[in-house]
Amino acid sequence: MGTPKQISSLQNPLIKQIVLLQEKSRERRKQGLFILEGQRELSLAIKAGYDVKSLLYDPEIISHEEVVNITKDSQKPPEFIEVSEAVYQKMTYRGSTEGVVAIVRSKKHDLKDLALKHGKVLILVAEAPEKPGNIGALLRTADAANLDAVLIANPKGDLYNPNIIRSSVGCLFTNSIGVGTTAEILEFLKDRKINIYCAALSSVSENYTQTDFTESSAIVVGTEAIGLSKEWLNASTKNIIIPMEGEIDSMNVSVSAAILIFEAKRQRSA
Amino acid sequence: MGTPKQISSLQNPLIKQIVLLQEKSRERRKQGLFILEGQRELSLAIKAGYDVKSLLYDPEIISHEEVVNITKDSQKPPEFIEVSEAVYQKMTYRGSTEGVVAIVRSKKHDLKDLALKHGKVLILVAEAPEKPGNIGALLRTADAANLDAVLIANPKGDLYNPNIIRSSVGCLFTNSIGVGTTAEILEFLKDRKINIYCAALSSVSENYTQTDFTESSAIVVGTEAIGLSKEWLNASTKNIIIPMEGEIDSMNVSVSAAILIFEAKRQRSA
Repeated sequence: MGTPKQISSLQNPLIKQIVLLQEKSRERRKQGLFILEGQRELSLAIKAGYDVKSLLYDPEIISHEEVVNITKDSQKPPEFIEVSEAVYQKMTYRGSTEGVVAIVRSKKHDLKDLALKHGKVLILVAEAPEKPGNIGALLRTADAANLDAVLIANPKGDLYNPNIIRSSVGCLFTNSIGVGTTAEILEFLKDRKINIYCAALSSVSENYTQTDFTESSAIVVGTEAIGLSKEWLNASTKNIIIPMEGEIDSMNVSVSAAILIFEAKRQRSA
Repeated sequence: MGTPKQISSLQNPLIKQIVLLQEKSRERRKQGLFILEGQRELSLAIKAGYDVKSLLYDPEIISHEEVVNITKDSQKPPEFIEVSEAVYQKMTYRGSTEGVVAIVRSKKHDLKDLALKHGKVLILVAEAPEKPGNIGALLRTADAANLDAVLIANPKGDLYNPNIIRSSVGCLFTNSIGVGTTAEILEFLKDRKINIYCAALSSVSENYTQTDFTESSAIVVGTEAIGLSKEWLNASTKNIIIPMEGEIDSMNVSVSAAILIFEAKRQRSA
C-alpha cells in the first residue's frame, strides 16, 4: 500500500473539487463523479461495482488499515489520502462522523444496460420526482421489496445528489436503476410486455386491490403536486387508485408507492 | 367586527410570545397554546373545534373580510389583529405566504375523552415517535385511511411542534388523537377488546398478510432506530412483520405503518 498521500490545506484543489461535486449537479454530470460519505454507503457502492477513485479519511476517526479493509473488494484499489480534521470537516456535506469521504465514478443508468431477470418482473417507475427525500424513500421501499428495477422518467436532477444518497440510506446502490425519458421507458416496458399500472387520482381509476399484479408489472407514480403526465396515463394498461377516505386528498408519494408495491408482493406470494 | 387592533412593532410582547410558542415545547405546554400558520390548516383546526384566541394577519396578503370569513364557524370569534409586513415575517416559522398566523388553544388528547365508534375499529399506535416528519406522515396516512384513532404512547415532545403541523399538512386536525403512557394505552385497548398487532422485526413474528385484521385492531409501530419496547411486544395479541427481502433491513416507519394499515383496509373491504 505504501504511505498514503496527505492533505492538510483547505485550499488544496482536490478539496475544492470535492466541495464543488457535493454542491453542484452540473459538476457531477460534467466530471462523471460524485461524493460518497459513510462507511456503509461505501461498502454498498463497492459491492455494486462502483469505481472508487479516491478515498479520503481522517486518521483520528478511522485507521489506514480499516479504510483499506473496507475497499478490499474494489475492482481496483482507490488512491488513499489522509486528511486533517479541518479538511475532513470541510468536505463532509452531512456532518458525518465516520471519517471517510470518497470520490466515486457515476454510473450511466442507461436503459439498455439494465438486465432484467426472466419471468414476472415487478418494477417501480417514478416520473419526474423532485424531492430528494422522496426519491430516497422510494429507493428504500424498492430495496425492501427486492424490486427488479426502479426506473426514473424525466428526472429533475441527478441521482447522486447528496440528499438522495443520505435519504436512501445506501439503497441507491442496492437497486437496479434505469433513467430515461418517459417515451424511452414506455418503449422499454412495452417491448418487454410489462403491464403498466399508473397511480392516478381519478374516478375512472380502478381500486388497486382489484388490480391483478401477478403478471409482469410496472407501478408508475408521479409527483404529489401534479401527478402523472398524460403521456403515462394514456399509455397505461390500467390506471389505478388507492381510495382516499379522509378529509385531505393527499398521501406522500413514497407511502402510496409502498402500498401499491406491497399489494403486488402480497398477490404474488398468495 | 369593529376595527381590528394593529401591531407594527417587532418588540410587541404578543409577537415575542408567538415566537416563543413557535420555538419552545415547554412554553406551549405551560401556556396551553400553540401557533398555527396557513389558511387551510386554520380552517381544518376550526372545523375540528379548536379555539382560536387571536388571529394575526398581514393586510397586504389577506383582507380583514377574508380572515373573518375563514373563522366564521369558530365557536367564539377570535381577536383580529392587523400586523405590518415586518411583524408578519418575524412570526412565520415556515416562511408561509398566506398572511395568517393564529394563537390557538391546545387540546389535551386525554384517552378518556376519545370517543370511539361502536363496531370494528382500526387504530394506529405509535410508540415514542421522534421525528416530526414521521409523525406528520403517519397522520397523513391515518387521515387517508380514515382511521378511528391515532394513539401516541410516551411521546417525546408535544404534538403542536410546528414541524409536525407542517408535515401533517393539516391532518393533525382531521384525526382523533389520543396521548398517554404505554401502560395507559394498553389498558385502553384491552378494556375495549381491541386486538394489538405489534410491528416487530423478529423471526417469530407472523407475516402481516397472514394476520386477520377484520376484528377491532390496533396496529402498533415503534421507532426506526429501536423498534417497540418489550412492554408492547409482550402484551400484543400477535407480533407481525413485513418481510424485508432487500439488502438493507430498514423501512421508513410511516411507510411500514401505511403498508400494514392498508392491508387491514383491504381485508375489511374484501
